[in-house]
Amino acid sequence: MTFLRVAFVQGRPRFGRTEANLDHGLALARTAQAELVVLPELWSTGYVFSSHEEVASLAEDARRGATATRLADAARRERRHYIAGFAEVARGRFYNSAMLVGPRGVRAVYRKLHLFEREREWFSAGDLPLAVNRVGPARVGMLICFDWRFPEAARVLALLGADLIAHPSNLVFPNAQEAMRVRALENRVFTVTANRTGIERRPGDTVTFTGRSQIVDPDGRVVVRAGKAEQVAHAVHIDLARSRHKRLTAATPLFTNRRPEHYGVLVRRS
Amino acid sequence: MTFLRVAFVQGRPRFGRTEANLDHGLALARTAQAELVVLPELWSTGYVFSSHEEVASLAEDARRGATATRLADAARRERRHYIAGFAEVARGRFYNSAMLVGPRGVRAVYRKLHLFEREREWFSAGDLPLAVNRVGPARVGMLICFDWRFPEAARVLALLGADLIAHPSNLVFPNAQEAMRVRALENRVFTVTANRTGIERRPGDTVTFTGRSQIVDPDGRVVVRAGKAEQVAHAVHIDLARSRHKRLTAATPLFTNRRPEHYGVLVRRS
Repeated sequence: MTFLRVAFVQGRPRFGRTEANLDHGLALARTAQAELVVLPELWSTGYVFSSHEEVASLAEDARRGATATRLADAARRERRHYIAGFAEVARGRFYNSAMLVGPRGVRAVYRKLHLFEREREWFSAGDLPLAVNRVGPARVGMLICFDWRFPEAARVLALLGADLIAHPSNLVFPNAQEAMRVRALENRVFTVTANRTGIERRPGDTVTFTGRSQIVDPDGRVVVRAGKAEQVAHAVHIDLARSRHKRLTAATPLFTNRRPEHYGVLVRRS
Repeated sequence: MTFLRVAFVQGRPRFGRTEANLDHGLALARTAQAELVVLPELWSTGYVFSSHEEVASLAEDARRGATATRLADAARRERRHYIAGFAEVARGRFYNSAMLVGPRGVRAVYRKLHLFEREREWFSAGDLPLAVNRVGPARVGMLICFDWRFPEAARVLALLGADLIAHPSNLVFPNAQEAMRVRALENRVFTVTANRTGIERRPGDTVTFTGRSQIVDPDGRVVVRAGKAEQVAHAVHIDLARSRHKRLTAATPLFTNRRPEHYGVLVRRS
């Protein structure tokens, strides 16, 4: 039997306070016994940017920035993995990204494919392929927040072999958590949504985040869910045999039942 | 403004009693004022086949069989459209199909793409492309029952322009209705799930159906839902402007936000 202990952190970062936010996230993470800890989207910076200058001043290099350095240090000391959202700068472009960090440093970066609302003003849409990485015995994919709305994204990760989809978020729609249950169910994967909480008031915009971070199992059941406002970490033990069992009944395999020859419209450019 | 009045019929067919089942369905349908009435999967025959001979004796030609004849007659007299599930025979093959019938007769046939459990013993998997047909001002796609589990199917119909997905069903999984809310939400379409109710006891198998037929709007809200056991028809007025409004916010279009160049895995044959 192959298990992984996985946790989410739900907290409330303060806009622009990168070091304090990393302190806050890592302090919450230390309360969770887990081999993989997932923190929310744009954890280091906060969410509501109000100018391009702000993005430029807060975005980080994915290998040498403060988020990479601090998480790599914690991962090495704690001998475990972290996934966290951060604002990335690379070759003069900015991305809403997440990094996977292990004891030996940054292992993978995902750049959000589906940008929401004003994110398009601040960030370029992701330009890296959806991918799955090993964390101990588990195969882990990353999505960020609004990617939940596009069933294609979770499906691609599941077809690439993901046991678990880590989902750093700054959710604002009330139905995202319920939809993530269907993402788990339709793909028979675990999902770990690490959402932030609180209200961010900034020049030009005020955004209220929905909390309710959750871990969902391959049957679509919520294993653990945080409250709307609490700042907390929760860990659960997940059995990877369950995400690898892709049969619904003895006679009904999920993935080989797909009919890709009828799905061509999905990859046509609009 | 462009509206359509659409209804589902939820009832309990008796296995093998094609004429009585059509009587039963059409009687319920007459209680609903609607331009399009959706009946459950395999309405004419019942669901639990126990031999190939039984399938062969009950399957119908999609244009000349009892279901086509009776529904075309009702559609002509009532000046409206029907969608209903039936067992189809065509060129020596059998399909779990649905037909769209209007005042001038059968207009389209959909053959279930994703077969569940023992259906594979009795039927060939669908071999016709997913398609959308006009019913009055509305663009209507068809899925059948277990197709709900495959997000690709509803997505293809939505990308082909469906306002509404008619979903004749014989559902047995308890979470299908909630998942259909996500199908509606993620595609911003209306869904009409016409499910059967009752228990079918037949040689070798007993199946309990979940009722709770429903119509869901493009925000994922259940507009009307039947009980688990009742035999009933419900009609609602739907506003097609809503299914054509594919923006979540002014800055966030749903479909043009898709990233088909990253979805290639979805159409690879496994």
